[in-house]
Amino acid sequence: MILRLGYAELYVTDLERARAFYVEVLGFIEAERTENRLYLRGVEEFDRYSLILTRRDTPGLGHFGLRVASPEALSTLEKLHAALGVPLRRVPEGTLPGMGEALWVREPNGHPVAFYHEMDQVHSFSIASSEDALPMRRTHLFRGIPPLRIDHMNLRVADVDAALQYWRDRLAFSVSEYVVKDGATFAAWTRRAPGTHDVALVRAKGPALHHVAYLVQGPQEIIRTADLLADAGYQASIEFGPGRHGLSNALFLYIRDPDGNRIEIYANDYPRDLDRPPIRWTWEEYDRRGRLWWGPEYPARFLETQPVNDRWPG
Amino acid sequence: MILRLGYAELYVTDLERARAFYVEVLGFIEAERTENRLYLRGVEEFDRYSLILTRRDTPGLGHFGLRVASPEALSTLEKLHAALGVPLRRVPEGTLPGMGEALWVREPNGHPVAFYHEMDQVHSFSIASSEDALPMRRTHLFRGIPPLRIDHMNLRVADVDAALQYWRDRLAFSVSEYVVKDGATFAAWTRRAPGTHDVALVRAKGPALHHVAYLVQGPQEIIRTADLLADAGYQASIEFGPGRHGLSNALFLYIRDPDGNRIEIYANDYPRDLDRPPIRWTWEEYDRRGRLWWGPEYPARFLETQPVNDRWPG
Amino acid sequence: MILRLGYAELYVTDLERARAFYVEVLGFIEAERTENRLYLRGVEEFDRYSLILTRRDTPGLGHFGLRVASPEALSTLEKLHAALGVPLRRVPEGTLPGMGEALWVREPNGHPVAFYHEMDQVHSFSIASSEDALPMRRTHLFRGIPPLRIDHMNLRVADVDAALQYWRDRLAFSVSEYVVKDGATFAAWTRRAPGTHDVALVRAKGPALHHVAYLVQGPQEIIRTADLLADAGYQASIEFGPGRHGLSNALFLYIRDPDGNRIEIYANDYPRDLDRPPIRWTWEEYDRRGRLWWGPEYPARFLETQPVNDRWPG
Amino acid sequence: MILRLGYAELYVTDLERARAFYVEVLGFIEAERTENRLYLRGVEEFDRYSLILTRRDTPGLGHFGLRVASPEALSTLEKLHAALGVPLRRVPEGTLPGMGEALWVREPNGHPVAFYHEMDQVHSFSIASSEDALPMRRTHLFRGIPPLRIDHMNLRVADVDAALQYWRDRLAFSVSEYVVKDGATFAAWTRRAPGTHDVALVRAKGPALHHVAYLVQGPQEIIRTADLLADAGYQASIEFGPGRHGLSNALFLYIRDPDGNRIEIYANDYPRDLDRPPIRWTWEEYDRRGRLWWGPEYPARFLETQPVNDRWPG
Repeated sequence: MILRLGYAELYVTDLERARAFYVEVLGFIEAERTENRLYLRGVEEFDRYSLILTRRDTPGLGHFGLRVASPEALSTLEKLHAALGVPLRRVPEGTLPGMGEALWVREPNGHPVAFYHEMDQVHSFSIASSEDALPMRRTHLFRGIPPLRIDHMNLRVADVDAALQYWRDRLAFSVSEYVVKDGATFAAWTRRAPGTHDVALVRAKGPALHHVAYLVQGPQEIIRTADLLADAGYQASIEFGPGRHGLSNALFLYIRDPDGNRIEIYANDYPRDLDRPPIRWTWEEYDRRGRLWWGPEYPARFLETQPVNDRWPG
Repeated sequence: MILRLGYAELYVTDLERARAFYVEVLGFIEAERTENRLYLRGVEEFDRYSLILTRRDTPGLGHFGLRVASPEALSTLEKLHAALGVPLRRVPEGTLPGMGEALWVREPNGHPVAFYHEMDQVHSFSIASSEDALPMRRTHLFRGIPPLRIDHMNLRVADVDAALQYWRDRLAFSVSEYVVKDGATFAAWTRRAPGTHDVALVRAKGPALHHVAYLVQGPQEIIRTADLLADAGYQASIEFGPGRHGLSNALFLYIRDPDGNRIEIYANDYPRDLDRPPIRWTWEEYDRRGRLWWGPEYPARFLETQPVNDRWPG
Repeated sequence: MILRLGYAELYVTDLERARAFYVEVLGFIEAERTENRLYLRGVEEFDRYSLILTRRDTPGLGHFGLRVASPEALSTLEKLHAALGVPLRRVPEGTLPGMGEALWVREPNGHPVAFYHEMDQVHSFSIASSEDALPMRRTHLFRGIPPLRIDHMNLRVADVDAALQYWRDRLAFSVSEYVVKDGATFAAWTRRAPGTHDVALVRAKGPALHHVAYLVQGPQEIIRTADLLADAGYQASIEFGPGRHGLSNALFLYIRDPDGNRIEIYANDYPRDLDRPPIRWTWEEYDRRGRLWWGPEYPARFLETQPVNDRWPG
Repeated sequence: MILRLGYAELYVTDLERARAFYVEVLGFIEAERTENRLYLRGVEEFDRYSLILTRRDTPGLGHFGLRVASPEALSTLEKLHAALGVPLRRVPEGTLPGMGEALWVREPNGHPVAFYHEMDQVHSFSIASSEDALPMRRTHLFRGIPPLRIDHMNLRVADVDAALQYWRDRLAFSVSEYVVKDGATFAAWTRRAPGTHDVALVRAKGPALHHVAYLVQGPQEIIRTADLLADAGYQASIEFGPGRHGLSNALFLYIRDPDGNRIEIYANDYPRDLDRPPIRWTWEEYDRRGRLWWGPEYPARFLETQPVNDRWPG
C-alpha cells in the first residue's frame, strides 16, 4: 500500500542561507520557490521535489511524506489512523504544489506524516528528440555533489518495540536490520522499498529527527561532499565521516546545514526482499562495528537530534 | 506476486573453462559444484546462487527463475499458465539445490521460466561477532570485478506487443521504457522490481537470449572489467563498450563468455515506481541515442543472439 | 634543461563557440580573454594558462611551449637551434601575457615551439587564511570534467628516427616507449617529466598535430566526459573511447572541439625514471594491443590530423 | 643528482604476521623472501622492491633508499658526507638483492639513508606478445587495495631549519610547502621528484619515523583500504582518516601494521616544478586546515612515532 519515502520538510531560519548551502554548494535542483518555501530535488528524481525547506523561527522536522500505491489507499489509511485515535486531516490536491490529495497524520510516536499518491513528474515520458532526455542526463547543468535522490528518515522514539507496532504491524513496513539491547529493540531499520530503510527508529528522547538521507553515487561523491563543504567555507558543517556503517553496509558522511539540520550523504547500501527475516545485531556488536564498521569511535555531537513539528496535522 | 528476477541458467560446453572465466577472472562466488553444474552468485547477494552454468553440447539459455512473494503464488501461477495452455510442470523442493517447490513453464513466447519462492540464504540473520558479517563485508576475499548481483534478462521475441500481453497483462510486469517502430512496439523493458527492468523484450527472431546482466558498483568497475579481461588474455571476450545506454541510463560493457554467452556488466540505471507511465522512445531517437547515448555506432556482432532450451519444462 | 610541456596554442574559427565547449562544458578555467584569444588552464595548474585558443580562419596547431629550468637555458637553446639552422626568434617578456622572455623556433621537423622560463603563477605561495587555499581547493567553483592539467602533445612526422635526433639527442628527451615497424621507429613517446610523454612522435604525413592531452582524475572522469558531451548536445565530438592504451597504460577518450581539433582526455599513465631504457613494442603487438589494450578495432577518423602553423616563428 | 625516494626498510617482529597484513590484505607484491626479510613492491613499480620488512625484536625504521641519477653520483655524495663528518659506508653491489653499489650514511639528523643507482627491474623493456605486458597490466593477479608505488617518508627532527641545511642546501631537495611556528620552520615537505614530497621533516623528538606513504589510485581505494582492514579483522589498524590534507592536498588513510609501524595510504597530491617557491603556511592555518582540510580534529595517537635504526651504517 505504501511504496516508499517521498519527501521531507525541514525548517530553516533563513531561506537564502539555506539555498546557498543546498543548491549552490550541494547541488540540489531548485524546483520551485515561494516566499516561505524552497522546493528541492536530487538530480535523478522524477518527482518534482523531495525536500521542502520552510522558513520558521527554529529548525527541525516539519513533516515527511510517504507515497502510496493508489488514491484509494488514502481512505484505507484514514480509517486505520482514525481507529488508532491519532490526529489526522485530509487535505485537498494542491495543498502542496503539484501534489494530489493527501492524508496528514501525527503517527502514534508523535512524528508528522503525510500520505499521498499523486506528485508532478519532471518528465513527459516521451523521448523523440534531444530535448526529451531523461532527467539525469543533464550532467552539464548539475553542480555540487550532486545528490541523486532522497533515501530515508532517521527518527528517535522512546520505545522502539511500541513504534514497531505502528510501522511494522499497521503500515506493513519490513524490518531489514535491528539491534537488541537489554532485552528490547534498541533500533530498527524499516522499509517498503527494497533498500535497507525508508524509516529508521532509534531509542532516544522522541519524537525527534536525527537525519534525512540523500543517496549519492559512491565513494568518490562521499569524499567530494566533504571537499565541497570545506572548499566553500562550510568546514563546520562536516560532522562525522566519511565512514562505513556495519548495519546497512552504507558509506556515509553526516553534515549539518546552516541551521543544524543533519543530512546524511549516503551510498552503497543493499536491496533485500521485504519478506526475508530481519537481521539481528547484539548491542555489543552494533556498538563495536554496527555504527562505524571501521572502529568504535564517533563524535559526541552525533547524538544530538532536531525537534519535530508539534502542531501537525494543524 | 512476482518480486524480481532471481537467477539464470546458461549452457556451457566446458565447465572448467567457464569456471576460470566466471570465478577466477570476473570474481563470481562459487556456491556449489556438481559434476555437470556450477552454481555462482555475485558478492552482495543473499540468495545462494543467481547463475547456474550447466554442461551441454551447445551454449545458450537453459532457463531463468523469477522469485514470487509467497508459496501460494505458485498455485495461482499454475492456474494462469494452465489457462494459457503452455507447457508447465510443478517440481518439488530440492529439484535445484536449496530451492523450494517450483513451477516450470514455457512462457507463450517460448522462453523457459521457473517460478519459486524459497531459496537458501547465505546469512544467518544474526550478528553477534566478527564472524557474522554481512555477505558483502568479505572484500578481503573477493576477486575480479566483482559482480554484485543479477540484474536482468534481455530476450528476443518476434512480436513485442504479443509478448507484452503475457509479461505486462498477465504477470503484471510494469513497462519502464519502450520503443515504437512502424506503429508497433519494437522493444519494451519490463520489471517487478523498481529498477528499469527484470526482463527486456526486443523484436527479433525468438525465442532467443541476448544477454544476462550483472550489476557492478559504477564506472570504475565497468572499466575494470575490460582491463581484467584483456590482462587475463580474454581480449576477444570484450564485445561492446564501455558505453552509456540512453534508454535505461545505464553504463555497460558487453562481454562474451568462452562459449559465446553474452553477459552485460551493468551500472547506474535508476528506480521508478511501478505505477508510473512507461517512457516512450521513437525508433529514430532510440537508434540515434537510446542504444548508445554517446553516438549511433555499435558493432554488428552485438545483434547476435543465443538459443534457448527447447525441451523445457521437460 | 627542459622541464616539461607547458602549454599549447590551438587555432579555432569562432572564439565564442570554443569558449562554450572548453569552458562551459569541459570546465577549463578562463584565465584571460582578449579580442582574438582565450587563455585557459586546468583546475590543478599553478601556471596561469596552459591552453591558448586563437581565432584564425582554419583550425590547427599554433605552437606549443616547453618550460625550461632557468632563464640561461634560453641562450643555450638559441645557440643549439642556430647551429641546426632552423628559423628562430627571441621574443621579449610579455609577448604572451604573464610569460617571460622566450625563444621561438620551428623545430627541424616543422613544428612551432616556444621555450620559456617565467610564467605567472595563480597562487601567492602564502597560506594564512581561508582565502589562500591552493588552486585545486575551489571545487565548489569548478564545473565540467574538470581537466586537471596539460599532459602531452602528439605530433606526426615523416621520419621518427630523424625526429629523435632532435628530440632525444639534442633536447635530451627520454624515450619511454617506442614501436618498431619495417626496421625503423614507427612511433616514440618522449619526455622530460617522469610520465610516459611530453611529446609523442608518430610516423605519418607531417608536420601535423594529432592531439593535445589533458589529464583527469581517473575512470569516472573519462566516462563523465562522454556523458557531459552527449548531455550538452556534443555527441558528434566523441570520437574514440573510453579505452585503455596498452602503450602508456593510460585510459583515454578522444574528443573533437567544434573546429575539429582533437583533445585526449587522459588518466592513469605511470612515471618512470628518465635514465631507464625505453620499452620496445613490435608493430604487430602495438597494432593488436598497444593502441587499444582491449582490442584491435578503432575508428578510421582517428587517423586524421590537424595542420600546424606554417608561419612560426613569424 | 638524487632522483627520488626508492625504498624503505621497516622492522617487524613477526614476518609471517607482517606478510599476512602487507601481502594478503593490502595487496603488496612479494618480490623475494629470505629467512629474515620480505621484499615487497606496489603493483605499478618497475623496481623489484620498494619495501623491505626485516625481522627484529622491536619495530621501527631500518633505513630508506634514495635513487641517484648515475653511479658517479655516489662518489660525489661520499665526499659530501665525509665533509659533513657523519658515519658512512660504501657497500658493494648485491648487499641488498638486485641493487648496485650503494653509499650508506647516517644523515646529520640521525636517519639511516642509502644512496644507490642500480636496482633490478621487473620488466624486460620489450613487448612482442601477451606475455610481455607492462607490470601494471596484471590486474587479474592483483589483490588488496592494491598499493601502486612508494611515495614518501615522514620523519621527525628536533630542528627543522637545521635539517633543511642538509636536505635542501646539501642534497638540493626542493621545499614544496612548509609551516612556520614561533619564528622557525615547524615542518617542511621536500622533494626531488615533482610531487609534494619525497621526505617530510616535522618538528618533534627525533630522529624518528612518523610514516611511510604508498600511493593508491584515488578516493575509492582510500575507502577500500579501510573496508579491507575492517573486513579482514584489522579494525584496530585503522588509525586516522579517510581525510584530505590541506597541506599537499592529498587524500589519506593512516594505518598501523601489526607491529605499529604507520603506513599512509595516499592519493591525489599534485606536481609542481622544483624551481618554484615553497608555499608557506602559518601555524594557525596549518593547525586549523593544513593537517585535515575538513576540520581541526585528529586522534591523539596520531602523534606517536617509531624509532629508527641507531646502528646504521653499521
